[in-house]
This record gives sequence, structure tokens and C-alpha cells, in this order.
Amino acid sequence: MNIEERLVKGDKRACARLISMLENKEEEALTILKRLYKHTGNAYVIGITGPPGSGKSTLTDRLTKELRKMDKKVGIIAVDPTSPFTGGALLGDRIRMKDLATDKGVFIRSMGTRGALGGMSKAAWGAIKVLDIYGADYIFVETVGVGQSEVDIVKIADTVLMVLVPNLGDDIQAIKAGIMEIADVFAINKADLEGADRTQLEIEMNLDLDTKKDYRPPVVKVSASRNENIDGLFNSLMEHRRYQEETGQLIERRKRNIKFELVKLVEEELMDLIMNRVLEEDLLDNLSEEIVLKSLDPYSARDKILKLIR
Amino acid sequence: MNIEERLVKGDKRACARLISMLENKEEEALTILKRLYKHTGNAYVIGITGPPGSGKSTLTDRLTKELRKMDKKVGIIAVDPTSPFTGGALLGDRIRMKDLATDKGVFIRSMGTRGALGGMSKAAWGAIKVLDIYGADYIFVETVGVGQSEVDIVKIADTVLMVLVPNLGDDIQAIKAGIMEIADVFAINKADLEGADRTQLEIEMNLDLDTKKDYRPPVVKVSASRNENIDGLFNSLMEHRRYQEETGQLIERRKRNIKFELVKLVEEELMDLIMNRVLEEDLLDNLSEEIVLKSLDPYSARDKILKLIR
Repeated sequence: MNIEERLVKGDKRACARLISMLENKEEEALTILKRLYKHTGNAYVIGITGPPGSGKSTLTDRLTKELRKMDKKVGIIAVDPTSPFTGGALLGDRIRMKDLATDKGVFIRSMGTRGALGGMSKAAWGAIKVLDIYGADYIFVETVGVGQSEVDIVKIADTVLMVLVPNLGDDIQAIKAGIMEIADVFAINKADLEGADRTQLEIEMNLDLDTKKDYRPPVVKVSASRNENIDGLFNSLMEHRRYQEETGQLIERRKRNIKFELVKLVEEELMDLIMNRVLEEDLLDNLSEEIVLKSLDPYSARDKILKLIR
Repeated sequence: MNIEERLVKGDKRACARLISMLENKEEEALTILKRLYKHTGNAYVIGITGPPGSGKSTLTDRLTKELRKMDKKVGIIAVDPTSPFTGGALLGDRIRMKDLATDKGVFIRSMGTRGALGGMSKAAWGAIKVLDIYGADYIFVETVGVGQSEVDIVKIADTVLMVLVPNLGDDIQAIKAGIMEIADVFAINKADLEGADRTQLEIEMNLDLDTKKDYRPPVVKVSASRNENIDGLFNSLMEHRRYQEETGQLIERRKRNIKFELVKLVEEELMDLIMNRVLEEDLLDNLSEEIVLKSLDPYSARDKILKLIR
């Protein structure tokens, strides 16, 4: 059997191989995904994001176990946009998942391609499709951080779970501002710590401001490490799925997500083309030299390059 | 006096006005910066990054006070790439700086332009130039988060300070992987907390791996809130400046930074052009519809758009 047939049959190694090909930007991987695209659509994708140290991995671990009780096949993609590590269990948090890694119904993959010019979301989104074709019922996409690239990655999920912890200090303002409208469910992890109630209150107050929506994201207190209220969080996620399916919003959301992905795919491809063909090192070096010497400014240099491209 | 003359004379309001124009993408702002670019180069730029809750703002506050003792003029740009707030003291952490805001020798500005397609670094880098022309001796550029966009913003600094705190959990791995090579100085803030020694050890061990460099980033334990060892951290930053000036590396670094900035400027401008002129909503809607119905896949749709652009 070739890799395509093996993937459709649910072969884990075919899955791993194809994701590696995506990371390495092998055109062949896209050709395969083009052919197999019609096999996608079964998986429900849950994006998990939150600041470093909020315990996203342990939480993913726990939620996966809930799904395994229901005999659901689960795929986990842990994306770290700043990590140079690819293809495996190098990250500390992956090691914790050892018991899941040996579970036949679970596929786990860490992805990181530091330096890839915006190529991270492309690879992660490709990996979601691979896991969908492979036969996962649920796919968790986990990203470290709260920046724009992390938001981009989880933006195409069917449900976005934001994990926060008490005592984030003033930065909670910034985090809230950035993710209030992309989160469908909030989890306050490490809820046994002092300050959990205040964090919950802050989020609820922000949600109060948005009275337009008929769906209000729940704010669920959990403790992943103590295994407390995981079922409560799980139910909130399933509730959001049900809500979207019953109102027809899921299909609308998927259309929006696809549009977003398409724009990003075009963007990334164009940047690749320009970087590799137009912006030659010599040209850049000469212009930078002039700028340092103040005989040119960066904006006029930019204009010069743009003229060349046209 | 017009805004240009006022800026060169060190007028704070001219400074604020020009940064607002940059945030609003007013072409006029770039025209002014083109003309005044020769006035830049005096300021020394220190980028400060670190995960949410690490106390970057308090630390910036303390370091600013050290510089004020030496009568240095200081500019502070607090960038929050995910925040919709612009132009002021809306963020909680800015409020803490009230005493600095009334100091004539300090200019503070919060910047956030959520949704701006990669436009954040352009605006922040423009603001650095504005503060440089305004006459700042030191400029702190502070970003929340550890993602790619945050790294991009501080990448053009002369010195990059990475602020960490104890007990970041497993995510410390990811953070380290992302910033080991961009950080010139590490601060472990809240060093009175348990686990500070372990965090320090982890960073030092990672630094041990990189034996190629002749400069080794120091790892400094501080407590911003308790005002402990701020002078130690301050000296480390000044030490790095001296090292770069004496070895001639500062000029090399600035050349590299300018090159990076130039590529990003071209990138952002091109994306703006394409998004506004080529990718029409109708085209995107139709293609997305086809993809949802599985009569088309995202990669073939991308190829179609690329053909249109050419």
C-alpha cells in the first residue's frame, strides 16, 4: 500500500510521515492532501491556547482521556511557533503524555518550525487535515503563547478553548483584550490557587460587555493536575459543539475558517516567492549599508524595492 | 512651528501625534520620518520580552528610574500585538507608571493594533524612530508574550532583555527554545519565589550548549516589586552595550536589524497591496463555498488565486 492508502486506513506511521513532509515543505504532501481532501470533515477540531505555564498540555491529556472512555479516536497537535524542534517528543510536556502515546486510539505530534516565515500555520493546518483523513474523531491543536501567530493557528478550530490561570497580574488585561472574541470556552486552570475567583470575575465582566451574541462562553474552573472538574469542562466543550450544530453555525464557521486559511495560504506562498526570487542578498546588503550611513532611510529603500518588484 | 520642528526640539505632544499617525497608517507619517531619518541613531534601544505575568512593566519602571538618576531621557513603548487599545494609558500596567508619566524626561506610550495584518512591527519600529528623533537616550520596547510577532518586534533592539519567572512549568522548554538566541540578558524576576534557582540553572545549562559565542548572556535574579538587585540588572545591560561598542558589534548588529526591518517593510506593503486589490470578497466567498462542499480543496484554490495574481 502507498502512503495515501495507508493514511485513509488509519495508519499512524503514514500520518507521521505526511506531517513531516508538510513541515519540510515538500510539494508532494500538498499533492496528496489535494487528492484526499474529500475524506476530511469528520473530525471536530478543538483549539487550545493560553499563556505559558497555564497547564494546557495536562488539560489536553485529561480531556483526551474523557474522549477515550467514549472510544473516540483522538489526534493531538502541539504547536510551538518558536521552537526549533520538530517531529516528536522533545518537549517536556510531551513526555508527560507517555501513557497516551502508547494508546492505539491516540496520535500525538509536536510541531515547531522556528524561523519558517509564517509557515507554521500552513503546516499545522495541513496536519489537521492529515489527522482528519487518518480518522480522528477529535483533534486538539495546542499552542503556547498569546501572540498573533498563536491566535492564527487556533483560529480555524471548531471550538477554541482558552486556558488561563489565577494571578497573571496586569498582563491579564492584554490577554483578555486579545482573545475575548476568539474563545468559545474559558478554563481557569489551577483553580485551587488564590485569585481564581477574581480572574473568573474579570472574565465574566468582560463577557457582560458583549450582549450581542446569543451564545455566552462559559468560564469553567478546573484543576488539571488534581483532576478536578475535568468532566465539567468537557461538557462545556461538547455543549458548544451541540449549540453550533443545532443552530447551523458550525457550517458557517467552517466556511469563515476556510476563507481565512485560503487568504493565509496565498499570503505565505507569495511571500515565499518574493523572498526567494526578488529580494537578493546583495541588494539588501547594499541598501542596509546606505541606511546605516543615513544616506538613505528605510522607507525610501522599501519604495525602491517595491518599484523593482513591479 | 510645524510638527517636524517640534519633534526635533523634543516636544512630547509632537511625539504622541506622530506615533498616532503611524498607528493609523497615515502616509504623511512616513514622509516625515523619511525627512527626519538623519536625526536618528543617538538612542540606545533595549527590547524587553517575556511571558505574561513576568513583571516586565515594573522592571521597565525600575530601570527607567536608574536612567533618570543619570539624567538620561527615556522613551518607553509598550507593545501589545493582540490589544485593540491604542494611544494611551488604558492598560493596567501603564497606570502603575503614573509617576513616570509626569516626569518631563520620560515619554510612555502603549501601542496595540489588533487585526492589523502584520502592521504592528511597522508601527512599533516607526515609533522607535520617532522617540530617537525626539531625543531619547534610551528607548525601552516592551512586548507581552513569547510568540513570533513579539520576537519580531524586539528583534531590532540593540540589547534584548528576556524576563522570566520561576515555576513556568513545562512551557519553560518552549520559551527557552524560542528565545535563547535572541536574548542578550536574562532576568529572573520574582526571584524570591521558590524555584528561582532551578530556572536559573536551566537557562545556564542551555547557555552552556552554545560555546561558539564569545559573549555569554548573564542570568540575573531580581525582584522588581521588592526593588532588589535592579542595579545588578542595570549594570548587566550597560555591560552588554559596552561590549558591543568596544568590539564594533553594535554597528554590525544595527546593519543586520535594518536588513530585517527592510524585508518586513516590503513584506507588509506587498501584503497590503494584494489584500486590498487582488483578493476580492466575491472570489474568496465562491472558492470557500466550493471547498466546504469538497468540490475543491484549499491548495488547488490557492493555486487558482496565484494564477490570477500573475
